[in-house]
Amino acid sequence: MAELHLLSPRGFRAAGVYAGIKTKQAPDVGLLVCDAPSPTAAAVFTTNRVIAAPVKVGREHLAESGGRIRAVVVNAGNANACTGRRGDKDARRMCQFAAGVAGCQEWEVLPSSTGIIGHMLPMDKVEHGIVDAGQNLGDSAEHALLFADAILTTDTRRKAAAVQFKVGRQTVTLAGVCKGSGMIGPRLSLKPKQATMLAYLTTDAKVPRALLSSLLQEASDESFNAVTVDDHASTNDTAAIIASGESGVAIGGREARKFAEALNEVCRSLAYQIAADGEGATKVVVVRVRGATSEHAARTMARAIANSPLVKCAMNGNDPNWGRIVSAAGFSGVEFDPGKCTLTLQGTTVFRNGQPVPFDDATVSESLRASEVVAELTCRLGKADATVWTCDLSKDYVTINADYHT
Amino acid sequence: MAELHLLSPRGFRAAGVYAGIKTKQAPDVGLLVCDAPSPTAAAVFTTNRVIAAPVKVGREHLAESGGRIRAVVVNAGNANACTGRRGDKDARRMCQFAAGVAGCQEWEVLPSSTGIIGHMLPMDKVEHGIVDAGQNLGDSAEHALLFADAILTTDTRRKAAAVQFKVGRQTVTLAGVCKGSGMIGPRLSLKPKQATMLAYLTTDAKVPRALLSSLLQEASDESFNAVTVDDHASTNDTAAIIASGESGVAIGGREARKFAEALNEVCRSLAYQIAADGEGATKVVVVRVRGATSEHAARTMARAIANSPLVKCAMNGNDPNWGRIVSAAGFSGVEFDPGKCTLTLQGTTVFRNGQPVPFDDATVSESLRASEVVAELTCRLGKADATVWTCDLSKDYVTINADYHT
Repeated sequence: MAELHLLSPRGFRAAGVYAGIKTKQAPDVGLLVCDAPSPTAAAVFTTNRVIAAPVKVGREHLAESGGRIRAVVVNAGNANACTGRRGDKDARRMCQFAAGVAGCQEWEVLPSSTGIIGHMLPMDKVEHGIVDAGQNLGDSAEHALLFADAILTTDTRRKAAAVQFKVGRQTVTLAGVCKGSGMIGPRLSLKPKQATMLAYLTTDAKVPRALLSSLLQEASDESFNAVTVDDHASTNDTAAIIASGESGVAIGGREARKFAEALNEVCRSLAYQIAADGEGATKVVVVRVRGATSEHAARTMARAIANSPLVKCAMNGNDPNWGRIVSAAGFSGVEFDPGKCTLTLQGTTVFRNGQPVPFDDATVSESLRASEVVAELTCRLGKADATVWTCDLSKDYVTINADYHT
Repeated sequence: MAELHLLSPRGFRAAGVYAGIKTKQAPDVGLLVCDAPSPTAAAVFTTNRVIAAPVKVGREHLAESGGRIRAVVVNAGNANACTGRRGDKDARRMCQFAAGVAGCQEWEVLPSSTGIIGHMLPMDKVEHGIVDAGQNLGDSAEHALLFADAILTTDTRRKAAAVQFKVGRQTVTLAGVCKGSGMIGPRLSLKPKQATMLAYLTTDAKVPRALLSSLLQEASDESFNAVTVDDHASTNDTAAIIASGESGVAIGGREARKFAEALNEVCRSLAYQIAADGEGATKVVVVRVRGATSEHAARTMARAIANSPLVKCAMNGNDPNWGRIVSAAGFSGVEFDPGKCTLTLQGTTVFRNGQPVPFDDATVSESLRASEVVAELTCRLGKADATVWTCDLSKDYVTINADYHT
């Protein structure tokens, strides 16, 4: 069987073209179109108070269309954020052009932008790009790749995931692509919230809109909202899913769980890929907190650890300096008793019941020299667990972000 | 007049000696003794849930002595944190030795430690160091410098400040030293709270204990608690003041404000020196938020901006990428209207009423090439202001913190 991709679910076409918005010559305008007669869609957006124009317009369109989104139009290289009324107008204009080439209504289009904040979109280029994309729509793997490339900024690789599951003899396919490398600390929500992470998911299942919305929020909480590169929630974060219904499988009742699991799996894979491709990252750091009093407490502690520059630098240097991990949990604001805690690094216990456990520095340091490092803090206070994915902090992160403007 | 120093206030002696705890040969055990008959003292400690042994013991001693602290004993190179019962015992032992050489009670000694977490103190070296310090006490500028050096870890320079003011014809002197370069994001409080920042203040005013406590908390909120290098509140943060009363000036009534201003000035100077000597720092970044609805709101926004690695890298690269500043304020959790905001960078307006203001990139970038950069966000919602001091994020920060264990 051929490898699955964003356009494997039936009823979708896509394109990615170079319109000259990015400085480097790579696709920067993407268009995803659902050709099915009655698609449903859901989206979660940034919770930042400063909201980019496309997020504002996207939210309106989702409401106006009653969740019937038929196209997604994206540009990379410019975030269209902090751009005032002209920015709003430009985001609407992107939708008008996309509606024109996709054969739908303006309010059936979800717009997205990613890149630098505070610059007006070069609309001549954007408009030409959308027209160009409309002329290059297709449903091949190649088309899926071009769309996935068109949404990237400082990412070093494209990010995609897909799964299939059976309902009776019928097959449902669910796929997604995303971008995100820096300004990553999403807190996505159905309610207004902000980071630049973009994710687009397609499925050929038929899913009622309300169910699709709640499953997307649930999946986002366990995936995109659990990844952090620099904890900087952006003005543009968006994750959206369109269900074409073309598989003929209606999701509800018992299948809802099956669909939810497929959605969670795709979202988690995409989120992990974001951590792995974090700006300057040399490894993924998986922070697990177990035995907390609530999931919120576990997540808050895991997030404090994952966001500590000291922890991230230690991981970059393969340094088993675990005191930084314990102390980060300590300032998270969550009540816990260090005297009951155990911390393991790559399976080696380094701290137990408030005291250091002797270990061989060189051996543990060597174990940290891996593409994935797991730090696990067990609190012994309750039954709640949480996992947060991050990456190490390297000199390359500084290089990338001290010189981004040039 | 000779320059003021930590031992200019009458009634104090100090020493700093090398005991072999630090890897590099530099003073690492400090002792500060107040010889006055009735000193008063106050201290604020970290709010981390993981509390180093000396903080625990110091809090107890402050309570037991009724605020009559007569000596401070400090070691650098080892934090005595996450060291369980043995750690507690070691911190008490430090106080016993200090009490012996200072001629006071064990519970009249405030202990501090700073350095790596999770290692047992080399007590043989610490004990010899304290005895050695006791034999080298003195009140000269040289003694003050040695004490200031003995508390440093990754700091590249010592930090000190002092002021004098008159009450009638009498002169009150207030002085302080501090350390802090990494793991800096103190939230100091009279109530249990954590970072490694240490500050010790001396004055020859006579100040009632309760007043001294409340003035120290107030001064800390506007200084130490407003500085962040990596937002990593430590297990050991401590700021303490001892008032010898030897000037003959009793503080109360009208003089309280005068004394508070002197204390605020010394603490602010020390906090600024911490930001300037932040690990890898090439400049101080002053983040000011004006016109917020409350001081808490202003401080929360300023702190979110100051802690953003993207903002800090941009400052390192002299990059006027102001969208990172506005978006950081946006995810701080504080309600505000970007459409009413103005942002200036070194006095140049770059964003006003939700829209970018054209500016010359090269000129503003050149203005960021300074030892102090001011970013000022005006919200136009209320009358509250706050200032937070931080530094840029450089490759050297990563070098220092990826290799600290070796």
